[in-house]
Amino acid sequence: MPVPVVPHSEVDVLIIGAGPAGLMCANALANAKVNVRVIDKRAARVAAGQADGLSPRTIEVFQSYGIAERLLKESVQVHQAAFYNPSPSGGIELTSRTQDVVAPSARYPFEVYSMKPLGVEVEWSTLPASIEICKDEHVLMDPASHPVRVVLQKLDAPEGQLQEEIVHAKYVVGADGAHSWVRKQFDITMDGEQSDFIWGVMDMVPDTDFPDVRNKCLMHSNNGSILLVPREQDRLRVYVQLENKDIIDPATGRVDKDRMGPDEMLEVARKSFSPYKISPTTGFLWWTLYIIGQRVASQFSVKNRVLIVGDACHTHSPKAGKCLKSGPSLSIALVVRGWADLSLLSTYESERRKFALDLIVFDKMYSTLFSGKPLSQENSHGVAPEHFLKIFKQFGGFTSGIGVHYEPSIATLDKNQELASGLVIGERFPPYKFIRAADAWPFEIQDLLPADFRFKLLVFTGDFSDPLQNARVESMVATMQKPDSFLNRYATSSKGAENSRFDIITISKGRKEGFNFLQFPTLLRSHWSKVFIDDIDVTNSFGGKGYSYYGVGHEGAIVAVRPDGYVGAIAPLDHVEDLDAYFTSFMTAAV
Amino acid sequence: MPVPVVPHSEVDVLIIGAGPAGLMCANALANAKVNVRVIDKRAARVAAGQADGLSPRTIEVFQSYGIAERLLKESVQVHQAAFYNPSPSGGIELTSRTQDVVAPSARYPFEVYSMKPLGVEVEWSTLPASIEICKDEHVLMDPASHPVRVVLQKLDAPEGQLQEEIVHAKYVVGADGAHSWVRKQFDITMDGEQSDFIWGVMDMVPDTDFPDVRNKCLMHSNNGSILLVPREQDRLRVYVQLENKDIIDPATGRVDKDRMGPDEMLEVARKSFSPYKISPTTGFLWWTLYIIGQRVASQFSVKNRVLIVGDACHTHSPKAGKCLKSGPSLSIALVVRGWADLSLLSTYESERRKFALDLIVFDKMYSTLFSGKPLSQENSHGVAPEHFLKIFKQFGGFTSGIGVHYEPSIATLDKNQELASGLVIGERFPPYKFIRAADAWPFEIQDLLPADFRFKLLVFTGDFSDPLQNARVESMVATMQKPDSFLNRYATSSKGAENSRFDIITISKGRKEGFNFLQFPTLLRSHWSKVFIDDIDVTNSFGGKGYSYYGVGHEGAIVAVRPDGYVGAIAPLDHVEDLDAYFTSFMTAAV
Repeated sequence: MPVPVVPHSEVDVLIIGAGPAGLMCANALANAKVNVRVIDKRAARVAAGQADGLSPRTIEVFQSYGIAERLLKESVQVHQAAFYNPSPSGGIELTSRTQDVVAPSARYPFEVYSMKPLGVEVEWSTLPASIEICKDEHVLMDPASHPVRVVLQKLDAPEGQLQEEIVHAKYVVGADGAHSWVRKQFDITMDGEQSDFIWGVMDMVPDTDFPDVRNKCLMHSNNGSILLVPREQDRLRVYVQLENKDIIDPATGRVDKDRMGPDEMLEVARKSFSPYKISPTTGFLWWTLYIIGQRVASQFSVKNRVLIVGDACHTHSPKAGKCLKSGPSLSIALVVRGWADLSLLSTYESERRKFALDLIVFDKMYSTLFSGKPLSQENSHGVAPEHFLKIFKQFGGFTSGIGVHYEPSIATLDKNQELASGLVIGERFPPYKFIRAADAWPFEIQDLLPADFRFKLLVFTGDFSDPLQNARVESMVATMQKPDSFLNRYATSSKGAENSRFDIITISKGRKEGFNFLQFPTLLRSHWSKVFIDDIDVTNSFGGKGYSYYGVGHEGAIVAVRPDGYVGAIAPLDHVEDLDAYFTSFMTAAV
Repeated sequence: MPVPVVPHSEVDVLIIGAGPAGLMCANALANAKVNVRVIDKRAARVAAGQADGLSPRTIEVFQSYGIAERLLKESVQVHQAAFYNPSPSGGIELTSRTQDVVAPSARYPFEVYSMKPLGVEVEWSTLPASIEICKDEHVLMDPASHPVRVVLQKLDAPEGQLQEEIVHAKYVVGADGAHSWVRKQFDITMDGEQSDFIWGVMDMVPDTDFPDVRNKCLMHSNNGSILLVPREQDRLRVYVQLENKDIIDPATGRVDKDRMGPDEMLEVARKSFSPYKISPTTGFLWWTLYIIGQRVASQFSVKNRVLIVGDACHTHSPKAGKCLKSGPSLSIALVVRGWADLSLLSTYESERRKFALDLIVFDKMYSTLFSGKPLSQENSHGVAPEHFLKIFKQFGGFTSGIGVHYEPSIATLDKNQELASGLVIGERFPPYKFIRAADAWPFEIQDLLPADFRFKLLVFTGDFSDPLQNARVESMVATMQKPDSFLNRYATSSKGAENSRFDIITISKGRKEGFNFLQFPTLLRSHWSKVFIDDIDVTNSFGGKGYSYYGVGHEGAIVAVRPDGYVGAIAPLDHVEDLDAYFTSFMTAAV
């Protein structure tokens, strides 16, 4: 009998794990038109329990993929947080309510909670059996090579059929969760520790006289803490702090799930809720137990060919919020297209590991405060409500994902920040509305910065009717059109706009009533839709202060925005060479 | 050989004509879950030329059907209007630009232009051959009868197959355009006259140095007038005023299409455009000629069983804007459901014919101004630019459809207006944002008033923490819950919320930081999502002045909003009997 031949295949990127982090990566790659496969050993997506709360910055990222509208329509928005604390008369009482998201520049000033998948096709019931990276350095340095070999097994193949496939990938992304198989194959350790705080979680449709089940609610009671998160279809997710003694098996010192079920959790929760009552109307829809731990992987990538993302590289409590990012996908997209050097992938670890370390420091502090006993006569070292509220507000920028700041690397040029003080190099480009010059249609500028594979060059021309500024713009255009300018060196215009690496958007000072966008050199208006003015809208309701909000002066500036929406570089109009230097540091010439 | 049997069928509503007015009606009926068929004699929808410019009010109506999002994504928005007039140095020059829509309360302060169909299934190539209404008054008065008999012929039936069908309809809507076949079958005359103004229209993608091809542009030149409307895919619709002598056949005195094609029109347009240049880049995409006429049908319905809508009942110039409404559909829906008396259908003619007459008076004046010669030294009686601009702005409420005001009828109760001076009885409910009490989520109130079949009862409670106001609200609820209250007399609650005729929404004064929505009687909070407060949103950006914007005082009010989004009745909290009288005038008791 002939031995069946194991099929081989090639792919640009193989993503292992179809949780939120893996799907987010897959979305980003699909959007950048990169060939990608997503596998998951589970038979189907789990309906609950996964970290599907999304921060304001994550909603902006969804918007940059063009799928925020659907997300917003299908999910629950949380706008307000309520704080409850022990009442002098026993039980708990409302201390205050405040905006859930304290991040003034957030375009979406709320969190969303969604249980729906994100629309990428997943190969379920598919297990990675082995993974190997080629050891030949020449192969590894060749961007066209497929140096990662992964053996896949189909768990649901019909009896007697071939169950294996060998995939040769340019890149593998390990998005396989806190117990990551990929991470273990390369002996990457997790640094950090577990806390002593044990929590239970349960989903229910509540019958209650408690008025804050549709806000995020943070409750400190003398019986332990509670966190409430409203969900779709009138559901409520209840996080309940548990006593270790109720749940640890004294013989082994480990969590014993048999000691605690949802009925017992509900009993604990009810004591904290007093004087309010709460019951599930239709039973418990889902529940689990977890120990809070803050840990970060010692490395995020192996030879820039295998990269780990999400819970596989950092774990923290669900209360620190969840900021899903596109991971290394946009760098991968640029390298796969042959536009950027392999070294660009190193920025993934340098940018993200620093952020992950900051996140777990914060989470440790915040979890300790939240799981701590409230201040009381018996416990004078307890957590004061004012202190907790202050920390909640103070770290709003951090927990919302809006305030993420990447350290300098080849993907950011640490120079000329003073030309646009509100556009922080290494931070995401903040939203603002500008008026399209040709038709006075108001646009949110973030909608002009989709997460495709292009760098956006925002040319702040200043006032073009000022002869001095006019001359500077004309001279800048002349410089950019020289054969050795980055625009020409890295141009791929012969293949049409679809393949262009740059998208030039012009933002002028001016008033819509008399403006003529045809006055600009054609480089700055490749289409009539590319010119905007910093003016108030036709209803006199918004806009008109963009230059000042972004800290751009009358002398203008050019701002390079990365495909992931982060500010990459800033240059003066009369020193475009700074952009040459920026792009030369990681871009490869057109062939 | 046996004679083939002609098939018979029944339908609630048969719509003849799948132009914008017919489709709009069909959407409204489908949304109200009424059984509807749409036929059209054409083989498919024409791609251009139909009146597919939509006014701000029409966008609100689309929103009430839940389809505005798609419309806005797929169409061109016009925010700005530009005015050109003769320049002292010859040719034309920009006089001013202004907001295209001058209607402060418009939720969507722009017009849209769309060529896409609206999503209702149409039976194309289907011709009505005959139509008859039953003469038996008993049958006509029976809401369950199907007294209109229409013979349909399929134009695309395969050779030898049966081509006819006999449809028995409860109602027929004639939406078959200016030359309406339905109208002619019932000898309904068109009153009014044609003007002497002849215009040509052509679509092109322009190559031009004229800066206002993406705004609506109204141009008076010494060579005649031009109107520009931007369209999808960089297209431009150019309306060109023509000289009668170039186009009328002197022998017959009628328009002769052979005398004028798009090339000749372009020549006329070019003279007006001077000193600017314009050429089509890829030829003419569509063109036609028309004579402006303002005419209104002498009646809009026959025995309340056949109703005519759109161009079939009134024609005017395309420049007066296009306000598509749902026609009689929502009244039909209520009658078909057995909830309202047949007499409710009479309000269609009483409300709409008055509006149509006003519209043509305006259109005649406006067309005369726009087609008139500009003011000049030679023509001291010409149209002054300031005067034209003033009229443009002054009638913004009218042309946008926002200012439509229906005269008193059984569908509006002309009483208690002083309790809510900003909610004008007989006008559409204006937009404003309120904060949902349970979760501080901000909502546009128009989104709580979908065009389904329900009447919305907005209960403005005032400040419920004020003991006096609290007592008034409690007493109002007690009255509304009495067995003989309209709420119980017309309730169909035994069939579930799906079949409820009323949706109660509570709008309270209060501050989100301390509000407890559970304090309200359960009638006012059938679900946690039904209670709103008039407060500023969590970002401190909007909201909080709704009571004052709507002119509702501290004593509150109940406002009944019709399924079509118009204010139907207002009552004081302590005189719910006014609502009893209102609903009793047209509603039929539950069975």
